[in-house]
Amino acid sequence: MRIAVCPGSFDPATNGHIDIIERSGLLFDKVIVAVLNNPKKQPLFSVEERVEILKKTCGAMKNVEIDSFTGLLTEYAKSKNANVIVKGLRAVSDFEYELQMALMNKKLNPEIETVFMMTSSKYSYLSSSLVKEVARLGGCIKGLVPEIIEGEIYKRFK
Amino acid sequence: MRIAVCPGSFDPATNGHIDIIERSGLLFDKVIVAVLNNPKKQPLFSVEERVEILKKTCGAMKNVEIDSFTGLLTEYAKSKNANVIVKGLRAVSDFEYELQMALMNKKLNPEIETVFMMTSSKYSYLSSSLVKEVARLGGCIKGLVPEIIEGEIYKRFK
Amino acid sequence: MRIAVCPGSFDPATNGHIDIIERSGLLFDKVIVAVLNNPKKQPLFSVEERVEILKKTCGAMKNVEIDSFTGLLTEYAKSKNANVIVKGLRAVSDFEYELQMALMNKKLNPEIETVFMMTSSKYSYLSSSLVKEVARLGGCIKGLVPEIIEGEIYKRFK
Amino acid sequence: MRIAVCPGSFDPATNGHIDIIERSGLLFDKVIVAVLNNPKKQPLFSVEERVEILKKTCGAMKNVEIDSFTGLLTEYAKSKNANVIVKGLRAVSDFEYELQMALMNKKLNPEIETVFMMTSSKYSYLSSSLVKEVARLGGCIKGLVPEIIEGEIYKRFK
Amino acid sequence: MRIAVCPGSFDPATNGHIDIIERSGLLFDKVIVAVLNNPKKQPLFSVEERVEILKKTCGAMKNVEIDSFTGLLTEYAKSKNANVIVKGLRAVSDFEYELQMALMNKKLNPEIETVFMMTSSKYSYLSSSLVKEVARLGGCIKGLVPEIIEGEIYKRFK
Amino acid sequence: MRIAVCPGSFDPATNGHIDIIERSGLLFDKVIVAVLNNPKKQPLFSVEERVEILKKTCGAMKNVEIDSFTGLLTEYAKSKNANVIVKGLRAVSDFEYELQMALMNKKLNPEIETVFMMTSSKYSYLSSSLVKEVARLGGCIKGLVPEIIEGEIYKRFK
Repeated sequence: MRIAVCPGSFDPATNGHIDIIERSGLLFDKVIVAVLNNPKKQPLFSVEERVEILKKTCGAMKNVEIDSFTGLLTEYAKSKNANVIVKGLRAVSDFEYELQMALMNKKLNPEIETVFMMTSSKYSYLSSSLVKEVARLGGCIKGLVPEIIEGEIYKRFK
Repeated sequence: MRIAVCPGSFDPATNGHIDIIERSGLLFDKVIVAVLNNPKKQPLFSVEERVEILKKTCGAMKNVEIDSFTGLLTEYAKSKNANVIVKGLRAVSDFEYELQMALMNKKLNPEIETVFMMTSSKYSYLSSSLVKEVARLGGCIKGLVPEIIEGEIYKRFK
Repeated sequence: MRIAVCPGSFDPATNGHIDIIERSGLLFDKVIVAVLNNPKKQPLFSVEERVEILKKTCGAMKNVEIDSFTGLLTEYAKSKNANVIVKGLRAVSDFEYELQMALMNKKLNPEIETVFMMTSSKYSYLSSSLVKEVARLGGCIKGLVPEIIEGEIYKRFK
Repeated sequence: MRIAVCPGSFDPATNGHIDIIERSGLLFDKVIVAVLNNPKKQPLFSVEERVEILKKTCGAMKNVEIDSFTGLLTEYAKSKNANVIVKGLRAVSDFEYELQMALMNKKLNPEIETVFMMTSSKYSYLSSSLVKEVARLGGCIKGLVPEIIEGEIYKRFK
Repeated sequence: MRIAVCPGSFDPATNGHIDIIERSGLLFDKVIVAVLNNPKKQPLFSVEERVEILKKTCGAMKNVEIDSFTGLLTEYAKSKNANVIVKGLRAVSDFEYELQMALMNKKLNPEIETVFMMTSSKYSYLSSSLVKEVARLGGCIKGLVPEIIEGEIYKRFK
Repeated sequence: MRIAVCPGSFDPATNGHIDIIERSGLLFDKVIVAVLNNPKKQPLFSVEERVEILKKTCGAMKNVEIDSFTGLLTEYAKSKNANVIVKGLRAVSDFEYELQMALMNKKLNPEIETVFMMTSSKYSYLSSSLVKEVARLGGCIKGLVPEIIEGEIYKRFK
């Protein structure tokens, strides 16, 4: 059985994230979407809320599980018997950073592979932080995030 | 009539900015240089001061207007009947970020185009933050910013 | 009056090219789409055919003119009283090359500006050579090129 | 059952290729290494030889199969019931090109995913063409290609 | 006599830094490793500690001297009669930033050259901040930093 | 004594090359400019002519020597007792390729270092092939190449 971890901050999940999760679900026996609990950042949504949003959005995918983690990603993956880390790639700046992380994670645990999937071109400009910036300024985020959180994001900025 | 908005923080305007503004003025009927009022940042010059500096520096260009804005750039552009956003491009990191912003702005308002102009090679290394860093450490910024603010920048760091 | 030249090989024109031409037509008084006659390359379509295809596809745009040229782009632009060169940008490799060309053209004629427009994300992977490769191997090119040449492209590879 | 196709020219296979094939074998039920038969190129080794070399080098991996193909990769993958294309990524230039191909292949067949694996840092500078260049000039290629072809590569350049 | 300055934060020095310092020592008559004292940052190790670590690690290299500096790098280099700045390059993001700094430093003092050395591929993913992140989360940093500070880094995060 | 090799095709030498050679001459005891004799390419100037041009242009620099070579660069460098390869860097595409070559050369001979110098921003768009293209089309190449070959380049294209 091949288990993949799909890690991220998901603050909030965008439709670009959901797209990567759905496509990952077709490639591996089980995909664990793992929300990073980073105590050094001030999130818009709490870890619990982010897990809840992903559960509601990805609930129909039978082999997708939502979880959260703190600490080293490779340690978390090992504890879940995962042998793959799945990441979406958008652009060159992503690529450089993700290359660095993939090589470091390989050093930390050579038995865990990182695989990358290209973000759909229609979501190529999407990021959680850009969505938050647009929402903060009152711009339309329809189609950028799961419908169930559209309204909530605006509320958080009031 | 084609109206272009040339947005930026301009904290402070560099000679690279002035070069892009001048060249934009030749391409469009009217260019509105729009100073972003970003309440989340601690600027060296207030929005009013930045507008004033740009007015003094670009005053001779008849179709260039200086303004400031808060909120979404596309909303601001629309309120000014502008149909173009003009940005200068220097390097790859600029390019990735500007590509993302241009695609998002296209989504927010498909009627507003973003066009890019290449920064002159002699200003390819210039940025407001690098100028401030050099000035803070007492380095020479002659030729990097409009003459009228050279002295003032040093004063701010004392 | 501001006249823009939109140069390229257009062998064949893709929907990405058409998109850039259409959007350029909104920004300048006149756009001259200029097919490069490069004697060093073996084209799929002759210069005359390429001009014809563009005329049929962009015919409805009143301020768009189709032409061909040989020699230096800046000389051609000058002969047409154009003061702008318009180019579409897709990715980093484009960007590096286009930056080089823009700076060289600026050196050759400082009065002619190069402006760049971002290719729509849905056409971000499109290029004439990739379309030809797909067609040569019998793949579907529907939606990638103007409808009127879809069939013709396949014929050329038989 | 998840079947991955790992396509390439493999002219010749390098240790970087072998590394990606081995690691792919751990992620999917079956990996079909598919040697591209490109009639437009003058190869150093014939398709049959390249298949043979890969068979000898990857013979110990039970779920790895060696094959060759002509035509569209997505058509070939479909004919093999494969739902994944696996590619190794080295550097930015790779990334741009591979992004373009992945998006085109997604358009040609949305049911086939492309996933990328990072080349080990110790092979980050390796490419078939660079190996050939070094061998042609008499340089040492030990450790860069499978041992069984080291000698043969030099012979071909005599 | 050619004197090179090798500047950096070195908070902490990684084996990638040590590798660049060692190789620089072979190219110039004297190499001054210069720890930047940046009052705006909260370091893990004080400037004095960082100097001490570098002294212990690079002590055996006869033409390598460890020092610290504040202010403009070009001023510091001049005060040391250095005519070269040596920097390690890893990836594209490094490259863009370092290009900008090299051009600015050239403007500030045209008599001081910047030369770049490629980081060994085995250290291509290493950075002080990534090492700190891994250590903070309890991951293994063996082989990433000089042995003498491995234990100390963990202590600082407790 | 530190000897550097500055390799290239120099077909023809541009002012960007000359700038790098001059600056290299300040950093090393001796700089050997080495014209690559590549039998696979059709040059504009013969190797002998290129050596001659460089001799005339760089003749005033006392520690600069002009030579030509075939075969592996690392072998050539070793035969000249050189311990450094000097290369100019312009843009990202340069960087990727040069990174690959530097790592391969390090593998071929670990005792020879590659160092990079940034091309002056005023020559950032210059390349031998672009100069040839401009000259072939009758454009002005004044200031792009050494004066003594300006006229000759045009003659070669007639």
